[in-house]
Amino acid sequence: MSTLRLRLLIAYDGRPFRGWQSQATKDAVQDHLEAAFCNTIGEKVSVQGSGRTDAGVHALAQVAHADVPAERLAVEAWRGALNNFLPNEIRVLRVTRAAPEFHARFDARGKIYTYRIWNETYLHPLEIGRAWHMPSPLDLEIVRAGADLYLGKHDFAGFAANRAPGYAAEDTVRTIHQIGITHRGALITLRYEGDGFLYKMIRLLTGTLIRCAQGREKLDFIREILAAGSRRKSSFAAPAEGLYLTKVLY
Amino acid sequence: MSTLRLRLLIAYDGRPFRGWQSQATKDAVQDHLEAAFCNTIGEKVSVQGSGRTDAGVHALAQVAHADVPAERLAVEAWRGALNNFLPNEIRVLRVTRAAPEFHARFDARGKIYTYRIWNETYLHPLEIGRAWHMPSPLDLEIVRAGADLYLGKHDFAGFAANRAPGYAAEDTVRTIHQIGITHRGALITLRYEGDGFLYKMIRLLTGTLIRCAQGREKLDFIREILAAGSRRKSSFAAPAEGLYLTKVLY
Repeated sequence: MSTLRLRLLIAYDGRPFRGWQSQATKDAVQDHLEAAFCNTIGEKVSVQGSGRTDAGVHALAQVAHADVPAERLAVEAWRGALNNFLPNEIRVLRVTRAAPEFHARFDARGKIYTYRIWNETYLHPLEIGRAWHMPSPLDLEIVRAGADLYLGKHDFAGFAANRAPGYAAEDTVRTIHQIGITHRGALITLRYEGDGFLYKMIRLLTGTLIRCAQGREKLDFIREILAAGSRRKSSFAAPAEGLYLTKVLY
Repeated sequence: MSTLRLRLLIAYDGRPFRGWQSQATKDAVQDHLEAAFCNTIGEKVSVQGSGRTDAGVHALAQVAHADVPAERLAVEAWRGALNNFLPNEIRVLRVTRAAPEFHARFDARGKIYTYRIWNETYLHPLEIGRAWHMPSPLDLEIVRAGADLYLGKHDFAGFAANRAPGYAAEDTVRTIHQIGITHRGALITLRYEGDGFLYKMIRLLTGTLIRCAQGREKLDFIREILAAGSRRKSSFAAPAEGLYLTKVLY
């Protein structure tokens, strides 16, 4: 029986789910996708994503692969079949045939994440669950200057949350190619492009940047953490609801 | 005791509420605003909006006025006081002192409404409750040609839902100054600007336009209803969730 590797492009509203990664409680995005495969062909199928997203984090274009029996369903039919079984808050945008050696995680050469901040006294009603509400004024020049410090190749161990015990230690050196900052009305958007990001890294980078832009830390705080490797960590994590996995680069 | 007339600019997510207009069940936007006034100063205050919006319709910039005792609270303090008592899905964006004769409804010389349509097989997860999902392909040339028929001064009785019995008959002649149509990816946006709109008029105009763009009615259907005055009505109303009160013109 020949198998076919599918490549999926997936969007989700992160709020109803316990993140991407499969949970014992079966309420992660990966769980819903695997259940949709199983409901479609009556067989267990493993879905491998490009990486995890935390509970509450949104995805505009998560990528995953899955191996299915080649003869069961035409590639064009999978999108409809899966969406039929998925909750409305998860949608498969595209299904294509992948090369048998394609790997959603190992082949990813980079990622783009967007972080949205609503910088006004009150959160706009249509931004609930979709942006970080930051009522106090921010110094955008400091946001820009702090983002510049993040650019390039660094050991980002100080901007990574610890994994659960038993998790294999990983290389914490990453390269951030670009951080685009836009400001329109009350909305500040940070667009991070890099070769990869550690666990909670974008939330820690953003939270620390905002802490500086509020004047509660100096930019030297960022310089020191970047220089200290794993010996010093930032604990200022921005909330999940402002974060969007925007693109996986292959 | 002197009174002060306040002018409010209000945004809301229409989903949790039974529309703008006060309900016996007290779950309309107007009810929440009047309760917030009462909670602030311990007195009943009437809030007069620029017009109604239906249950599920969103507002980016609804306008209302209210008379309050002049000496109780500074104008600048009202925004915070009201938002403090309002549900998160309703936010007062701005409170200013209005002229004593300012009337949110009678002084409005026009309105802008936006209608959002998601034209793709599946609704994007982040568009749930925020756009009309239209899975079948639409002929945008027909949308444009149909919108042209709406422009100008017409008796729109055929594009208005009946009010409850006992409601005073109203003049059904309105002028639509402009309908802006934009199309970006799966999102089609219709922006209606006119001197005023009848009950459910934008939803009926949009629903009828889409019916034509699906090829299920000819454009002559629109011409006939516009020509027939109150003798013929369209029953194709687009759902509330795609509709946004975008601006009230004074």
